Amino acid sequence: MTKAERVLRATVWNEYVEEREDPSIGELYPNGLHTTIAEGLLELLGERVAVGTATLGQPRHGLPSELLDGTDVLLWWGHRAHQAVDDAVVEDVCRLVHDGMGLVVLHSAVHSKVFRRLMGTSCRLDWRHDDREVLWTVEPDHPIASGIRNPVVIPCSEMYGEPFDIPPPDELVFISSFEGGEVFRSGCCFRRGRGRVFFFAPGDERYPIYHQPEIRRILANAVRWADRRPARIQPAGGVERPRGWYQDGAEAR
Amino acid sequence: MTKAERVLRATVWNEYVEEREDPSIGELYPNGLHTTIAEGLLELLGERVAVGTATLGQPRHGLPSELLDGTDVLLWWGHRAHQAVDDAVVEDVCRLVHDGMGLVVLHSAVHSKVFRRLMGTSCRLDWRHDDREVLWTVEPDHPIASGIRNPVVIPCSEMYGEPFDIPPPDELVFISSFEGGEVFRSGCCFRRGRGRVFFFAPGDERYPIYHQPEIRRILANAVRWADRRPARIQPAGGVERPRGWYQDGAEAR
Amino acid sequence: MTKAERVLRATVWNEYVEEREDPSIGELYPNGLHTTIAEGLLELLGERVAVGTATLGQPRHGLPSELLDGTDVLLWWGHRAHQAVDDAVVEDVCRLVHDGMGLVVLHSAVHSKVFRRLMGTSCRLDWRHDDREVLWTVEPDHPIASGIRNPVVIPCSEMYGEPFDIPPPDELVFISSFEGGEVFRSGCCFRRGRGRVFFFAPGDERYPIYHQPEIRRILANAVRWADRRPARIQPAGGVERPRGWYQDGAEAR
Amino acid sequence: MTKAERVLRATVWNEYVEEREDPSIGELYPNGLHTTIAEGLLELLGERVAVGTATLGQPRHGLPSELLDGTDVLLWWGHRAHQAVDDAVVEDVCRLVHDGMGLVVLHSAVHSKVFRRLMGTSCRLDWRHDDREVLWTVEPDHPIASGIRNPVVIPCSEMYGEPFDIPPPDELVFISSFEGGEVFRSGCCFRRGRGRVFFFAPGDERYPIYHQPEIRRILANAVRWADRRPARIQPAGGVERPRGWYQDGAEAR
Repeated sequence: MTKAERVLRATVWNEYVEEREDPSIGELYPNGLHTTIAEGLLELLGERVAVGTATLGQPRHGLPSELLDGTDVLLWWGHRAHQAVDDAVVEDVCRLVHDGMGLVVLHSAVHSKVFRRLMGTSCRLDWRHDDREVLWTVEPDHPIASGIRNPVVIPCSEMYGEPFDIPPPDELVFISSFEGGEVFRSGCCFRRGRGRVFFFAPGDERYPIYHQPEIRRILANAVRWADRRPARIQPAGGVERPRGWYQDGAEAR
Repeated sequence: MTKAERVLRATVWNEYVEEREDPSIGELYPNGLHTTIAEGLLELLGERVAVGTATLGQPRHGLPSELLDGTDVLLWWGHRAHQAVDDAVVEDVCRLVHDGMGLVVLHSAVHSKVFRRLMGTSCRLDWRHDDREVLWTVEPDHPIASGIRNPVVIPCSEMYGEPFDIPPPDELVFISSFEGGEVFRSGCCFRRGRGRVFFFAPGDERYPIYHQPEIRRILANAVRWADRRPARIQPAGGVERPRGWYQDGAEAR
Repeated sequence: MTKAERVLRATVWNEYVEEREDPSIGELYPNGLHTTIAEGLLELLGERVAVGTATLGQPRHGLPSELLDGTDVLLWWGHRAHQAVDDAVVEDVCRLVHDGMGLVVLHSAVHSKVFRRLMGTSCRLDWRHDDREVLWTVEPDHPIASGIRNPVVIPCSEMYGEPFDIPPPDELVFISSFEGGEVFRSGCCFRRGRGRVFFFAPGDERYPIYHQPEIRRILANAVRWADRRPARIQPAGGVERPRGWYQDGAEAR
Repeated sequence: MTKAERVLRATVWNEYVEEREDPSIGELYPNGLHTTIAEGLLELLGERVAVGTATLGQPRHGLPSELLDGTDVLLWWGHRAHQAVDDAVVEDVCRLVHDGMGLVVLHSAVHSKVFRRLMGTSCRLDWRHDDREVLWTVEPDHPIASGIRNPVVIPCSEMYGEPFDIPPPDELVFISSFEGGEVFRSGCCFRRGRGRVFFFAPGDERYPIYHQPEIRRILANAVRWADRRPARIQPAGGVERPRGWYQDGAEAR
């Protein structure tokens, strides 16, 4: 199999609470947000991707170490149950991001333990339900914006508003406006260790946002952008180095 | 005089064309945009600032070398007559920014020769007249946002819309939304050489924006932020260095 | 008291282990690294600063909430006992940084719980004892480099080498080289929430680095740069906003 | 032809002065630096690349519009004859970078008109001949560092030293140290308009640096990283937009 044919292994994680408790949400996402998101990736990436899902209620939240180790990009959706996520799983996910796994953080997962730990900030923001969102690309040549017409209108969305308490993003791809006048940095890239992290704001469970073609395209682009970093020819370091270790005959670790 | 009492010398440059040609603009800015902007700085900074003005039609556009050399922060407003600005003056301004003079680039001066040369990009953007602008602070602890309530509403403004062709700003302070739904990175900081450059989008000549108290406050903050960098104890370099030049007894240049 | 006369309250925290266990270190820092660092700040900032110290062995590591609440800038030195620092104190420190307290992270505190949590990375690096360090300013107009001749030679230091696993710094002020040929980003600025964080690499306990005048100057500059952000006129947000909340007559929170 | 098989068209530009005037340089680069650089790209990228060369002495410096229009990545080497480069060609190159062409700026081309115009700074630096350079990767997962062992030793090189007067790079890939103790940001990425710009410091004409395998690998990586941005589905903007232009039925430009 050539490099171009390598299969990217994505795992969509979802707390999967509200779809089962609230019929109006369950109607939009009858098999859970994770299933709809996974279907979108399969639809757009086809044979280039293998997509699994995992949910909070499964043993170890559906994320045993073997599965995480075999995941190139993890997508994370949570809202009501952030505190129910086990700290050991959070630590595993962060460690794997540091080692090169990609992470796509979706909507209210902005307040997940995983994202807060990787950002080192409160990730605080303002919010309001039921507003029209207009998503603008500010870096049109970014791979995550590839094939996306500018702007994308989301007829009904949740407003997320500035100030948004994150570190300055390494790359700012999207900014949204809302009919109420607010703005939000809605697509932000970060590097953390070897891993790439993309936060994408649209995606409230009350609206059919993950069925919208442009949003599915953005997620497919994000998964490919965040793909696990290729193997290095040299270990990561973090070791004591004798003087001259890198010169002829010296053994690099 | 203590350091705190040092007087900052600001010069407001304006092409001063439309105020004299269009009565409705002349009514808003009877002595020119530059005069209104200068009055705002004096009103807010008082004895801490000395403000001069200069316009396109004066000899050397009102910017003889002695005046530029004695300017700590230059504010620049232009729109219709960018091409009429002499290249020698443009080069002088850029050189002085490199040497530590601050520069505040206002509204349509986004297309001035000076700003384009300092950015190295086209500075292209979309636009439309007559829209409500809502200016949001995204970095609330930035000195340029000091004392500014979030958001600032500008009842009538010119829409500037993304994508905005600039290098990624070193610090992004403000993002605006417009009633038509567009967004814009409306307050951007850049370092160029020793100088600090602030671009601020609001300020179309058709509207009384420079009379609005919050806008005046932002400009006063920007002038203080961009203030000439203090003298260094060491020259800027750019020289050939013998081996060991910085060791004991070696003479630093 | 005018604004210029406000006293900055700094607290120097030190684990204070090795100075008491190892006579050669105790000789360099007879009252602990924290005392020498505090003396340097007092020497250079005089009446503009009030400096306290705190150590690991004190109740709550010498950092009761009242003291932290009254601290504008916290300096942190640790090496051997990172794991002995109580998680509740770590959480307090991070929360206060988010709320605007400054933090100066010194040398081996790169591996402290506090710094790792604020960075979201492993902060891994290479190292070796006993090398000459040459510290270069790459942003000569940064306030932390004010008055610092370029370069600063540290005759005996610990090598810290790249790759250094941190997020890309918001501002990179210093890069060091070592006689063995390694390089390191040795002075890095980060914004986290409302707080400013400065990491400064030189400062191994085996060498008299905190007695060196240029290093003391850099720390004094860093403390002033990281000073607590001024009070805002508006709360931080993180709340639900009704449509039109910011318009005339609406009550901003 | 599949996307993966698309041929990248690179053009290596060289002033080609010193190789013909100085026999010791001519011995290292008998057909000019451009030829050696072009051979390196062909050696490593094979059928994935088509490489042409152009030199100062040719009509229009070997860069007629048709050739530039058909170039995906331009590499630029100059030293003695920067002022001899015609401003019209400089403007063409900058415009094409803005439109998506990649640019790799080599060694002393740091002072070329093209690079200075794209940076907006003086690009000033210190220098010295005949020193050992050790090139360190500070972002090991950057595509330009792919396959590069850390560090790379260049036995004989020209020292370039900080402070280096450039805007803060968007991505910092390499930092070099020199035996004399200096450091330099030797691999820097910038986005300018649609184009990607990579500056790479090593490459003085007096030394066989462009024959060194790791340097050739870095240049091949850089060319692929800087490759022309793919076609967009939407024009670049910079136009007046009527209210509601992006809504259903509205015609996007």
